[in-house]
Amino acid sequence: MYSVTVRDHVMIAHSFKGDVFGPAQKLHGATYVVDVEFRRPDLDADGIVVDISRATNTLKRVLAEFNYRNLDEVPVFKGRNTTTEVVARHIFDQFAAAIRAGELGTGAGAIREIHVTLHESHVASAGYEGSLK
Amino acid sequence: MYSVTVRDHVMIAHSFKGDVFGPAQKLHGATYVVDVEFRRPDLDADGIVVDISRATNTLKRVLAEFNYRNLDEVPVFKGRNTTTEVVARHIFDQFAAAIRAGELGTGAGAIREIHVTLHESHVASAGYEGSLK
Amino acid sequence: MYSVTVRDHVMIAHSFKGDVFGPAQKLHGATYVVDVEFRRPDLDADGIVVDISRATNTLKRVLAEFNYRNLDEVPVFKGRNTTTEVVARHIFDQFAAAIRAGELGTGAGAIREIHVTLHESHVASAGYEGSLK
Amino acid sequence: MYSVTVRDHVMIAHSFKGDVFGPAQKLHGATYVVDVEFRRPDLDADGIVVDISRATNTLKRVLAEFNYRNLDEVPVFKGRNTTTEVVARHIFDQFAAAIRAGELGTGAGAIREIHVTLHESHVASAGYEGSLK
Amino acid sequence: MYSVTVRDHVMIAHSFKGDVFGPAQKLHGATYVVDVEFRRPDLDADGIVVDISRATNTLKRVLAEFNYRNLDEVPVFKGRNTTTEVVARHIFDQFAAAIRAGELGTGAGAIREIHVTLHESHVASAGYEGSLK
Amino acid sequence: MYSVTVRDHVMIAHSFKGDVFGPAQKLHGATYVVDVEFRRPDLDADGIVVDISRATNTLKRVLAEFNYRNLDEVPVFKGRNTTTEVVARHIFDQFAAAIRAGELGTGAGAIREIHVTLHESHVASAGYEGSLK
Repeated sequence: MYSVTVRDHVMIAHSFKGDVFGPAQKLHGATYVVDVEFRRPDLDADGIVVDISRATNTLKRVLAEFNYRNLDEVPVFKGRNTTTEVVARHIFDQFAAAIRAGELGTGAGAIREIHVTLHESHVASAGYEGSLK
Repeated sequence: MYSVTVRDHVMIAHSFKGDVFGPAQKLHGATYVVDVEFRRPDLDADGIVVDISRATNTLKRVLAEFNYRNLDEVPVFKGRNTTTEVVARHIFDQFAAAIRAGELGTGAGAIREIHVTLHESHVASAGYEGSLK
Repeated sequence: MYSVTVRDHVMIAHSFKGDVFGPAQKLHGATYVVDVEFRRPDLDADGIVVDISRATNTLKRVLAEFNYRNLDEVPVFKGRNTTTEVVARHIFDQFAAAIRAGELGTGAGAIREIHVTLHESHVASAGYEGSLK
Repeated sequence: MYSVTVRDHVMIAHSFKGDVFGPAQKLHGATYVVDVEFRRPDLDADGIVVDISRATNTLKRVLAEFNYRNLDEVPVFKGRNTTTEVVARHIFDQFAAAIRAGELGTGAGAIREIHVTLHESHVASAGYEGSLK
Repeated sequence: MYSVTVRDHVMIAHSFKGDVFGPAQKLHGATYVVDVEFRRPDLDADGIVVDISRATNTLKRVLAEFNYRNLDEVPVFKGRNTTTEVVARHIFDQFAAAIRAGELGTGAGAIREIHVTLHESHVASAGYEGSLK
Repeated sequence: MYSVTVRDHVMIAHSFKGDVFGPAQKLHGATYVVDVEFRRPDLDADGIVVDISRATNTLKRVLAEFNYRNLDEVPVFKGRNTTTEVVARHIFDQFAAAIRAGELGTGAGAIREIHVTLHESHVASAGYEGSLK
């Protein structure tokens, strides 16, 4: 299996509902350093997994939708805890849709899996990985 | 698959038996920067993989049992080479037991896999990953 | 010159006033990974720059005062832009006071300089460094 | 599954053919920081995945074959785009052959998978992972 | 003293003249991960060292002049060994000129020092730092 | 001022004397990831601060004298607490002597300062920096 990973970051505010979150129930924030890994069993004719420029641009576009925002007020996250896990899944879903829509190029249709990892500090990260049909 | 990873470290002395270890047969030591990753297919009702505070506390407890120690004299490692691989497996086993005992909360019962990685320098690491039944 | 550096992190929300901040004028947030470096020309009788346990505890205490908070509502930052630079200076001032108050031990009186660095992402950081009288 | 990872680096020049590469069609270069991870279900009698000294030496040997070179002129890569993915696969193949030839020791025959990752910058990496028969 | 640091990278080919360079006399390449640190004794009225957007854009512009190039053919480096040190100095000079030209904003005139660091691998870096008059 | 930094690591055991060290009074150990930075105001005729191959070899030689050792039994550290600060100073002294002895080449005589930093974990480091006469 071949893979390519690109990285960018996003800076957001949010709050959580639920005793399990302790002090994080208050409005606070995070920098998420986001890694998106694309995986496929074979390379395309150019010898690549994905056009890295397109992948980087899509990551920038996906993050721009909630960068410098309070996630408590971003419609797509309405009524949910925007845990690092949930944000990772959101980014996965956006990339899955972008690939289906051809935004990463026609060759990107051969991508089998996407792994999204969000580093929220030097001691904690979370992620979501899944297959593309 | 969703994941959450927490990090802490431990500073130990030890020695190895076996020609393959060369100079590491002498008493020496290591800092292990330890990553423990929890994996499960779905999030709980709060939108998380695991209570990160509990996970962090359990990691601290597990490491405290041999932090600032000479592993050659720690009973649980008696008679074995405490290679980075072996210490990774030990930490995995401790977390598997902690989850079964409910130490990470009842929701943690849905955790399917744990991946433990020990970074022993800027150029070497080792790990153990396994499923929870 | 000898030095010792300790690291911890804090997760906050805030907003900025001023056109120069562009989209960061909206409520957003950040993880700051904070390094505090202590510097002095000679070591104490134990061979150390500072008691690293005390330094770590003080860092935890200083950060706890605004961890998981919206800095726009934290009194000490009232009416100011809580840029990374300003937060670095605040942490410096808190450590200078802690050393004067003996919180880091009597030997810590020989510390000459403190350098504070806040990493806000994988591509940006800010800091403040100054001398202690 | 147990794992061990070793790291080294290589500094190369190359150029790419294909519109998808944009400015990278010109002769340019890269530092690849290379991680090679060895995976197997059980440890050997010494408690290790692989002799880390041998693994490190093999990595050095494999990289030396094209370190400080223009990959456009290295015979093994003749006529191909030496993308990060392609170089990762090449390193995988070299390690698979080295293990079959006994270069990593007889115990290394139990290694089931190798994962190769090349970090080409602080924001991009690529890799190849596969099973050994 | 306050500071702000921004990071970007560049991928280049080059060769060196001189026995001291050993195998690096051949055409090879490097990724330079570039940190540029701005330092000044006081903050401006907005509470910042420099407009981080402008600083990031200038870094991108300065690197674009030789990104994806063979430095042996870039006029500004003609006849010189483009060691990491020399490239660091070049970037320093470009920023000093940009500040004088007002490209980083009028407030940036209070910047006293610039420190440039180029990370060429996980085990080596080089830099140039100097004062602005 | 120009600089070049090289990195290597060492794995040691030791114990400390003094209540301030708490649990670290017991025999334990550490991995030190060691950075040695060389600084000088001008480059030599080749355009470098120091021959990086020689610098790397000297670092390897200096560390080999106590790598895989119990520092409590290494004569040069006899009767002293081998804190990270003390080990940093030792490495500084060894490099100062090596430069005076010509081990880093005749051009290395122009090196003005050496900064040694030892990273002992992901949250702590210590160092010593000084001038060369």
